[in-house]
Amino acid sequence: MDGKRSFSRRGFVGGVATALGYLTLDPASRAWAQSATARAPRPKLSTDEYDTLAKLANNENPYGPSEAVMKAMTQSFKYANRYGYPDGGITKAIAEHHGVKEENVLIGSGSGEILDVACNTYLRNGRKILSSEPSYDVIFEHVTAYKAGTIRVPSLPDFRQDIPGLVAAARAYSRDIGFIYLCSPNNPTGRIVTKQEIAQLLDGIPRDMPVLIDEAYFHFVEDPDYETSIPHVFEGRPVMVTRTFSKIAALAGMRLGYAIAPKEMISDMRPYATGTINAIVKWGGVAALTDTETQAKVKRLTVDLRKRTTAELQSLGYAVIPSEANFFMVNLRRPVPPVIEEFKKKGVLVGRPFPPLMEHLRVSVGTADEMSRFLTAFKEIVPGARTAKAG
Amino acid sequence: MDGKRSFSRRGFVGGVATALGYLTLDPASRAWAQSATARAPRPKLSTDEYDTLAKLANNENPYGPSEAVMKAMTQSFKYANRYGYPDGGITKAIAEHHGVKEENVLIGSGSGEILDVACNTYLRNGRKILSSEPSYDVIFEHVTAYKAGTIRVPSLPDFRQDIPGLVAAARAYSRDIGFIYLCSPNNPTGRIVTKQEIAQLLDGIPRDMPVLIDEAYFHFVEDPDYETSIPHVFEGRPVMVTRTFSKIAALAGMRLGYAIAPKEMISDMRPYATGTINAIVKWGGVAALTDTETQAKVKRLTVDLRKRTTAELQSLGYAVIPSEANFFMVNLRRPVPPVIEEFKKKGVLVGRPFPPLMEHLRVSVGTADEMSRFLTAFKEIVPGARTAKAG
Repeated sequence: MDGKRSFSRRGFVGGVATALGYLTLDPASRAWAQSATARAPRPKLSTDEYDTLAKLANNENPYGPSEAVMKAMTQSFKYANRYGYPDGGITKAIAEHHGVKEENVLIGSGSGEILDVACNTYLRNGRKILSSEPSYDVIFEHVTAYKAGTIRVPSLPDFRQDIPGLVAAARAYSRDIGFIYLCSPNNPTGRIVTKQEIAQLLDGIPRDMPVLIDEAYFHFVEDPDYETSIPHVFEGRPVMVTRTFSKIAALAGMRLGYAIAPKEMISDMRPYATGTINAIVKWGGVAALTDTETQAKVKRLTVDLRKRTTAELQSLGYAVIPSEANFFMVNLRRPVPPVIEEFKKKGVLVGRPFPPLMEHLRVSVGTADEMSRFLTAFKEIVPGARTAKAG
Repeated sequence: MDGKRSFSRRGFVGGVATALGYLTLDPASRAWAQSATARAPRPKLSTDEYDTLAKLANNENPYGPSEAVMKAMTQSFKYANRYGYPDGGITKAIAEHHGVKEENVLIGSGSGEILDVACNTYLRNGRKILSSEPSYDVIFEHVTAYKAGTIRVPSLPDFRQDIPGLVAAARAYSRDIGFIYLCSPNNPTGRIVTKQEIAQLLDGIPRDMPVLIDEAYFHFVEDPDYETSIPHVFEGRPVMVTRTFSKIAALAGMRLGYAIAPKEMISDMRPYATGTINAIVKWGGVAALTDTETQAKVKRLTVDLRKRTTAELQSLGYAVIPSEANFFMVNLRRPVPPVIEEFKKKGVLVGRPFPPLMEHLRVSVGTADEMSRFLTAFKEIVPGARTAKAG
C-alpha cells in the first residue's frame, strides 16, 4: 500500500476533519438521489426483443435452473393456491446444508430482502452503514428509506477492500455505525476478502458491532485463501452471512436468499421480514442445495469463459481487475456511460456504472455465444481495441 | 344500535378515561405476545398427509389457478434466472384494469407485504393503527415491529363494523393514529362495510388521516350496497385500497398483491417495499386479471357452497354470521380452541380463534367434498348438532 493512503488512514483516526477528506460520507439526501436513479424503471422490452439480447448486465446465471430444480418447482404448483402448505423443509434444508440450527436461518425474497431487513433492523436512530467503495450499490438504496447514511472507505489501488481502513473507520465512528457491510467476492470488482482479512477485520472492530458478510458469489471462487465466514457466526459475536439462490442456482427471478446469523440476530430481524416467500422457489431451493453436480458444471463453464474473455481483453491492451466471480471489470480508460449505450445498440447489455469507477465496465459472464458477441462488439466500439489486437 | 353502546361512544369522545373502557388499546408488549403466537411455525406435515386434509383454515381458493394462469406461469419459467426480464407489464395491467395510472399502483408479495409496508411507512413515532375488533389479525403482528400499538373499536352486536365508533375514535385520537385499517368484507366475520358507510367514515374523520381499505375478498360479494373504494383514492385524500391475487385468482402460495393509492402515498411507501416479486406470479397475475370467466365460476361455486353449508348449520340450530366472503363464522356456543383440535383429528383444518369471538368458528369454503367432510365432522364433534338435526 502506498504511503499517502497509509498516512491518510492514520490521519482520520485522529480526527473527523481529516477523515472527511478520505471517507465518503453520504448524507441521506445524496443517497436518496442515488436511489431515485437506481430505482428508475428498467426499459420495457418485448419478450422477443429481450430474447435476442446478450444479457451481461446483471450477473445472472445464463444456464437457468437445473433439471432437478425445474422438476421440483413444477411439481409444487399444486401449492400455488395455498398458505400453510408443505414447503419442502427449506429452512431445515438450509440449516442442515451449513450444519447450523433452524433458529440461525432467516429466508427472504432473495438476499436483497435480507439486506433490506438488516437495514430496517440495525439502522435505527440515524445509524449508518460502514462499507467499502465501490460495493454492491443496491444496499445503499435501502439506507435512504431509514434516513440513515453511509460511511464508505475507498478500496485500495489494486481494488481490494481496505481492511485496515475499515477497522480504523469502525473504531473512529463506532457509535454512528449500525452495521458493517462487506461483500466478498465484492460486486462490482469481483475481488475477494481473504479469510485472514476477515479475521483481521473481526479482531479489529468493536466486539458488539454487527457485520453483514454478503457471500452472493461464494460459489464461483477458486482462490484457496477464500472461505465462508459462517463459522464466525458462532463465535458469540453479531456476524451474519447472506447467501442467495440467484447466482449459482440460477433462481434470480424466483427470489430466494437467506441469512445465517446468531439466534438473537435472527429474532431481531424476523419481524421486519415479510416472511411470505413464493411456494415454488422454496421447493426449487431445496432441490438446488443438493444438486452439486450442476453447480460444479456452472462454476467450471463460467470461470473458463471469464478467463478466456479477460485474457482476450488483456491481449487487446485493456487491463482487467482480477475477479473470482461470474463477472469482471475492464478498464476502458474512458467514461463508461456512452460505451454502455453503444453496446446496447448492438444488442449487448452490459453493467451499469459503479461510481467512483467511472472508466471501468462491469461485464457479467454469459454463455460462450454471448461472450463472443461481447468481444465482437468490444472491438467495434472501443477505440484502439482492434488496432491493439492487430499490433 | 343499543343505548349503552351509543352512550359509551359519546362518552369516550369526551375523555380518554371513558374510552379505555370501550376501546381496546394494545400496547406494543401485548401485540408482541400475540405476534409470537401467531407467527409460531405451522405444524409440519408431509405432502401426503397434507393432501388428504380438508383445508378450510386459511380462506384459500380450493380450485387452484385457472388453465390460462397456469399456462402463463409455466411459460415464464424462462425468466427464472433473470432480473430485468419482461414481466408481462403487471403494473400496467393492474393500472388499466382499474382505470388508474401506473404511479397509483404498488405491487407486493401478496397484499400482506403491502400491509407491512403501510405499517412501516405510517406508524413512525409510535403512531397506532385504528381498526375494528375483530379484524384481520396479521396486520396487528406487523405493528409490533414498529413499537406501535392499536386502537380497536368493538364491532356491533350484529358483527358489522361500528363506523360511527371508528369516526369518533379517529377524532378523539387523531394525533396518535398512523392510519385506519378497514377490512371489507371483514376477516374473520365476512361482513361488509357498505358504500354508504365508507362515505360516512371518510366524511367523518380528519381529512389528512390515512385510510387503508383491504378488499382482499372483494370478488365474492353479492350485496348491491357494496362497491370498491378505489374511486375514493382520487378525491385528494390519503385513501389506499389493497387487493390480492391470493383469493379469487388462487395464487396465495405465489404471493402477489397490490395497493391503489394517490401517487404521493405510493412514493412514500415504495422505499419500504422489497420490490422483488417472483417472476412467475407476475405473468400469472396478468393472465388472471383478464380471466373473468374463471373468476365468475369460482364465485358462483363458492357462494353456493357457502349458502348450502350455512343453511345446514342453521338447520342444526347454530347461528351463522351473514358472510359475503369465501368463509363464514358459526357460533358454537362453546370455546373454539378444543373444537378446532377435534376437527384436526378428523382431518379437517378449520380457522384459528379470533379473539374476542372465542365461541365462533371461522370456516373457509372449500370444495363440495370438503364441505361435506366438514359437516360430517361437525355433527360428530359439536354436542347436540346431530340431535338438533333429528329434532
